[in-house]
Amino acid sequence: MITTLRGKTKEVAISTEGPVVIIGESINPTRRKKLVSTLQANNFDFVLELAETQIKAGADVLDVNVGFPGVNDVKLLPETVKVLQEHFDVPLCLDSPNPMAIEASLKVAEGKCLINSVNGEEKSLQTLLPVAREYGAAIIGLCMDDDGITHFPEKRLAIAEKIIERAISAGIKAEDIIIDPLAMAVSADPQACIVTLETIRLIHTRLGHNITQGASNISFGLPDRESLNASFMAVSIYNGLTCPIANPEKITAMVRATDLVLGRDDFAVRFVEFFQSRQ
Amino acid sequence: MITTLRGKTKEVAISTEGPVVIIGESINPTRRKKLVSTLQANNFDFVLELAETQIKAGADVLDVNVGFPGVNDVKLLPETVKVLQEHFDVPLCLDSPNPMAIEASLKVAEGKCLINSVNGEEKSLQTLLPVAREYGAAIIGLCMDDDGITHFPEKRLAIAEKIIERAISAGIKAEDIIIDPLAMAVSADPQACIVTLETIRLIHTRLGHNITQGASNISFGLPDRESLNASFMAVSIYNGLTCPIANPEKITAMVRATDLVLGRDDFAVRFVEFFQSRQ
Repeated sequence: MITTLRGKTKEVAISTEGPVVIIGESINPTRRKKLVSTLQANNFDFVLELAETQIKAGADVLDVNVGFPGVNDVKLLPETVKVLQEHFDVPLCLDSPNPMAIEASLKVAEGKCLINSVNGEEKSLQTLLPVAREYGAAIIGLCMDDDGITHFPEKRLAIAEKIIERAISAGIKAEDIIIDPLAMAVSADPQACIVTLETIRLIHTRLGHNITQGASNISFGLPDRESLNASFMAVSIYNGLTCPIANPEKITAMVRATDLVLGRDDFAVRFVEFFQSRQ
Repeated sequence: MITTLRGKTKEVAISTEGPVVIIGESINPTRRKKLVSTLQANNFDFVLELAETQIKAGADVLDVNVGFPGVNDVKLLPETVKVLQEHFDVPLCLDSPNPMAIEASLKVAEGKCLINSVNGEEKSLQTLLPVAREYGAAIIGLCMDDDGITHFPEKRLAIAEKIIERAISAGIKAEDIIIDPLAMAVSADPQACIVTLETIRLIHTRLGHNITQGASNISFGLPDRESLNASFMAVSIYNGLTCPIANPEKITAMVRATDLVLGRDDFAVRFVEFFQSRQ
């Protein structure tokens, strides 16, 4: 199955057979005070800098999240999208819990965006699926619903199935539905990663959809986050993760390495190219 | 299944349920000219230094290989074993293609060693299994035989089964047989790692034995070997690798991270301890 996203002109194809497509996570105010202060001053230089750095480091798509307390991202998210598209042609992943911010951004965005995210809650499905359909966007379906977050992989799978069914009924193509199995902090729950890895395996083998996840969450609160994120990334990709949302400056080497290990990079062309680009 | 190894007094239990036990690979003349020259001069200082560095970096067992062209390791291997056991109490993994060097070392070694390695060739089985039985050693069974190295995981599994059957017939306990699925360079064959990963999965799920491998081989001839080895290590452990032979200075962080990701390190105790030991 192939999910195609588009910037103004540039297409990115995410295939369930790999290789992995990286969605850069860095345009996100969490732990980035400078992003908040520059955006509050209506200054987009830092956003553009974050975009450029990530693209150079291997991002194929950029996640755009400009939500922070006291700011109305219904206005700021579409503004940021416009500025980014004036400078870069990578597809964008619109990241907001506010459906109005998503819709306002889709109105101004060129190409085909990814919505981050729809989940299994009735309200989310009813609000966002028609919006995605209207603007021809792809969606991320997050494996949680009105009952909250379950620890059972089979139940997360069932939520994924529900989102897929509902999205298809709403007129969205199957290939435009990317599933997020939900990755939680392993410091809070020793089984957190195992539950996610098994959910990925189930979605990949039984549903065959593309799979994303915010792959940095799992190491929250722990030291040496890079080793944890790298280990979790490798096994996640092996199980079926195809388009992680992550920091390309830290994860691209491992992603390229894993594609090579999994036999998706004949003669190590992409792996060596990436290595040389960093020299 | 649990394989127990012993130094003079110290026991190391390798469990198929994890956590991972690291066999330090560094006492090996390949790419270590200094090891060759010091050993030729009958000077064991550098061997002892390599042992200490690896133990500090997380090695639970030490592989001992002193074979190089022009040297008779039938004499040198047991000498090295004796010197190491005068200074350290970790179990040893005796690494030589020469059965006479293995037997001579078992004669002088205290505790319970691991033999690296027996393979499926008639000659290897006939020569080494009685030696392992006589000295109460555990063995590594390498998945190759008189037909050479196969690219089919099911056939490697069949060789593992043959070695296990023959070893048990020779009086060796099932739990004292550790299987090496054979890891080859991915630069030479794009499918090399996938074949190994699938072999590991088959051995783990169908035979339930402990599994080792020389985990650094796969990146031979490529740049950024650490990313490749790290990625391959994480997925190998997920599939059932329990006691890799590797460089602890480079791989322990990833091993501890993977144990944590796989839910084998409650409250991240070992992971954080290792992190702090490096500060």
